[in-house]
Amino acid sequence: MSEQVRDGRVLRGDQTRQAVMSRAVRLASTEGLEALSLGRLAGDLGISKSGIFALFGSKEELQLATVRAAIVIYKQTVVEPAAVHPPGLARLWSLCENWLRYSHDRVFPGGCFFYSVSAEFDARPGAVRDVIADSGVSWIRMIEENVDAARRNGELRSDTDPGQLAFELIALLEAANANSVLHNDPRSYVRSATAILSRLQADGADAALLPARHSFRVDA
Amino acid sequence: MSEQVRDGRVLRGDQTRQAVMSRAVRLASTEGLEALSLGRLAGDLGISKSGIFALFGSKEELQLATVRAAIVIYKQTVVEPAAVHPPGLARLWSLCENWLRYSHDRVFPGGCFFYSVSAEFDARPGAVRDVIADSGVSWIRMIEENVDAARRNGELRSDTDPGQLAFELIALLEAANANSVLHNDPRSYVRSATAILSRLQADGADAALLPARHSFRVDA
Repeated sequence: MSEQVRDGRVLRGDQTRQAVMSRAVRLASTEGLEALSLGRLAGDLGISKSGIFALFGSKEELQLATVRAAIVIYKQTVVEPAAVHPPGLARLWSLCENWLRYSHDRVFPGGCFFYSVSAEFDARPGAVRDVIADSGVSWIRMIEENVDAARRNGELRSDTDPGQLAFELIALLEAANANSVLHNDPRSYVRSATAILSRLQADGADAALLPARHSFRVDA
Repeated sequence: MSEQVRDGRVLRGDQTRQAVMSRAVRLASTEGLEALSLGRLAGDLGISKSGIFALFGSKEELQLATVRAAIVIYKQTVVEPAAVHPPGLARLWSLCENWLRYSHDRVFPGGCFFYSVSAEFDARPGAVRDVIADSGVSWIRMIEENVDAARRNGELRSDTDPGQLAFELIALLEAANANSVLHNDPRSYVRSATAILSRLQADGADAALLPARHSFRVDA
């Protein structure tokens, strides 16, 4: 096989993989990871089932690749833009705001990808559950670390409990997503952002480091 | 058919129905409503598939009956015991505390039944989704009504926003369940109960109407 032919095959493989992942993350966010099947994706995309099988090998590999693709999108949308701020209160608020935008703007059509698949896999031990759980733990740690940095920076009260505050902030974020997805309630994001700003101020947040008002509107 | 034979058949039908529902709510709370099948339940319970079919008719009917059975258990465990208190702050706290106990004590083995099945059905229009969504709306209304009663009783500040406070309280409850189920974190219930008591006090709750400390412990 010439170098050029091999490159061409690798390129087509990459393009197929990208097309499959793009479809798979959208499908899993509305119908769950169990709804992914090699046959269905092949049919939706008009490519051969054997071509998808060659790339992913098994349903579990396809589910794992889908979760990893969703994690990449999540990092690009929520985590990386917040890194323009130093660790502490400004980055903490930026992570929360980016998360609400990520859910609100339906980066995944079913709302937060991880909300959709977490309940599905919580009671099914295995590699897929582990990757989902690990990504959740990493997110909790990131929020806790920024609470702790804010506390050490003097941007939050010195007796702020990072685990407790992170628990409450993430509770408010997830409730916005769940209420929007389940009840189509347009007030969810406003209520969540309002509560998060109040909660940070209750722990002594320096108002100069937070926006005077959040950017979510009921008709947004 | 004699009266006695008919009564006997109705009784056996009721017993079968109860056995099927008992198994179905447990199974759905861990694996989801899609995991329910007439054949699987028949196999698990050692009864004929045609016997279950005669009682439920279709998978959708079986799913609907399962959700309704879970609603009955939820009302008995969470809602009815709180009715010993008059509408207002005491009933509000009782609803929250009963909900945390219901999740903590695994009344359903997969944690809150409605958390488990909500994400599964949020994007599948139909009768099952509607019953799940309606039960969620009823719960939100009940919390809002008790916040409003507490406000009118003078047990919370007069400018308390029932929709906002109910959103936050339910966010904290659901986060306890989700963290316990997904991350097996024993601190979830303590953090949730702590946050709820603080949040009620932030809106001016009369401390005499709330317990000095909640009853959740990390090792509970």
